[in-house]
Amino acid sequence: MDYRTRQSRLLQSGEGSKCDVFLTSHLPNVRYLCGFTGSSAALALAPSGAVLFTDGRYTEQARAEVVGARVAIVRKSALLAAAEWVRKRFGRKRLVVGIEGDHLTVAARALLMRTLASRARLRHTAGAVERLRQVKDHEELTRMRAAAKLGASLFDVALRKTRPGVTEVAVAAEMEYAARRAGAEAMSFPTIVAAGPRTALPHAHPTAGKVPRNGFVLFDFGVILAGYCSDMTRTVCVGRPTAEARRFYEAVLEAQLAAIAAVRPGVAVGEVDRAARSVLRGAGLARYFTHSTGHGVGLEIHEAPRVAAGQQERLQPGMVITVEPGVYLANRGGVRIEDMVVVTGSGCEVLTSTSKELIVL
Amino acid sequence: MDYRTRQSRLLQSGEGSKCDVFLTSHLPNVRYLCGFTGSSAALALAPSGAVLFTDGRYTEQARAEVVGARVAIVRKSALLAAAEWVRKRFGRKRLVVGIEGDHLTVAARALLMRTLASRARLRHTAGAVERLRQVKDHEELTRMRAAAKLGASLFDVALRKTRPGVTEVAVAAEMEYAARRAGAEAMSFPTIVAAGPRTALPHAHPTAGKVPRNGFVLFDFGVILAGYCSDMTRTVCVGRPTAEARRFYEAVLEAQLAAIAAVRPGVAVGEVDRAARSVLRGAGLARYFTHSTGHGVGLEIHEAPRVAAGQQERLQPGMVITVEPGVYLANRGGVRIEDMVVVTGSGCEVLTSTSKELIVL
Repeated sequence: MDYRTRQSRLLQSGEGSKCDVFLTSHLPNVRYLCGFTGSSAALALAPSGAVLFTDGRYTEQARAEVVGARVAIVRKSALLAAAEWVRKRFGRKRLVVGIEGDHLTVAARALLMRTLASRARLRHTAGAVERLRQVKDHEELTRMRAAAKLGASLFDVALRKTRPGVTEVAVAAEMEYAARRAGAEAMSFPTIVAAGPRTALPHAHPTAGKVPRNGFVLFDFGVILAGYCSDMTRTVCVGRPTAEARRFYEAVLEAQLAAIAAVRPGVAVGEVDRAARSVLRGAGLARYFTHSTGHGVGLEIHEAPRVAAGQQERLQPGMVITVEPGVYLANRGGVRIEDMVVVTGSGCEVLTSTSKELIVL
Repeated sequence: MDYRTRQSRLLQSGEGSKCDVFLTSHLPNVRYLCGFTGSSAALALAPSGAVLFTDGRYTEQARAEVVGARVAIVRKSALLAAAEWVRKRFGRKRLVVGIEGDHLTVAARALLMRTLASRARLRHTAGAVERLRQVKDHEELTRMRAAAKLGASLFDVALRKTRPGVTEVAVAAEMEYAARRAGAEAMSFPTIVAAGPRTALPHAHPTAGKVPRNGFVLFDFGVILAGYCSDMTRTVCVGRPTAEARRFYEAVLEAQLAAIAAVRPGVAVGEVDRAARSVLRGAGLARYFTHSTGHGVGLEIHEAPRVAAGQQERLQPGMVITVEPGVYLANRGGVRIEDMVVVTGSGCEVLTSTSKELIVL
């Protein structure tokens, strides 16, 4: 990864260029800017150079991973150490220090203000790094393709293990075991396996509840591979689907395809949401589509942009988003279908290669 | 769980009693106070009643889980909805609104200030809920015992799977698979399996690196069961240990036992750290013990108190902490031994039942 270029782009961005020094302790942003993957760190970034602060647990790891920043191992809080370094380094100058108001806590801000005293003004740079992170470079896309592929392979495991009487957690266990064995660092979020009426809970955790003889089973899952997340959802039917079940499934699939068809550079993300929602409105199901259509994905499972109603952010080549409409009817069941897509020069490429025809087990 | 009692205790606590209404969107605290386990929520808590705000994904789940609070399903940010409710409910009165400065972001605080306008003063209630959470009640201890027991069973899996040539990730995969099959909701943190010189990295992620013919293998792992985390570490030796390896292991074990012996009500947590550190100092290894001795554990894997040098917090019956000294020598190897212990009326009880004698595979 070209960390130095990322740092330059941040410092030259609209927000970054207004700061003398930029501070972040948000770990995905730290990783994006200098490669460090430890669980506690702060990065101070200025045109004259960058310093990564972390603690003694990470001495060796930081030296092995960090590119484009000096490593400082400290015994105090990494953020406090970074603030003290800024105070010393920039001495008496009147400073503008860029902070991330979406991540920095109120208490951490107070710590910075005490440490920097009156010499500095803290500038809230909302989403400065996240805006860069939205557009993936070639190496990131290579990793995301690999993550999406590994993730998709788990659906085959799910299909093999899903049958009436098997518990949701047992299926989740098999999927996660297969993920680990295939080299995933971790799951990108808690695996969802929901069976029967529990498919109506969009974020159900797997339970000891059993796959019924008849009904939907929904799988929403992803892996982390080389730092990057995958995310996909498929819904299958156990036993012969009712006419209603088929109608729900076909409506969601049509909505999902319409949303994917809307993805191309220059389109506002809200239009992608609208494409899915208007198909479901046509089917009389819009009120059962209770969440937004998707989200960016990358180093984090949820990142910018939010693919939601009214969002004005424009799609750009290299953005990776999920497209995941769903309908949920309390006590009856739910259907969600989700792919990851990358925006290309003229449209999009679906990274999730798995078929979306209704599978009947 | 007795959520109403927890809410009353918070409102009657030193910090809570200074607030007209208390707002939290920190999920472990939301769960602790009303039982909701979804991934996005805000809880507004006042002597006259409580309201839990979340979104349409959690309509059914919130109604099933929440105790001691009314559920409001909203289409906007849960925190914004909570703030608007406070503004409406408490009208023109001059209000003190308790917030959690250690969790609330700078941006969220700005949102609250805009919404509540000049009617309210935000009061930073540092650790008010965390102080309650430190002391576990009977039902919590029952769950933590069960989590510790399930966690400990994974060490047997690790021992069965660890042999020269097996990769770190393969062992981690087997442990996590066993955890899921035994009913764990998830691992409580990314499983650490580190072999050979990689044991010198206190927070190593498992790699495709192989277990050597000779050297340490370190396992640090835990599960979440019924919401509560377990945490334990064992280090074993593959092949005949060198005299140096035996010396390191015995020193760490002696330090760990000394720290456990120091755990009793009324003792400052810094004393527990000091007990471990002074044994390692006696063995000439103190400078290789690069982290603190332990941490509280419960709904979160790391919670109050920090068992670290100089910390003045006093142990109380019902607190659950880890005791986990270690030594790490770059390029040679490391040893860490960790148990969970609960403070009792007169000392402590070790929740991790696994033997700590050096195991040679």
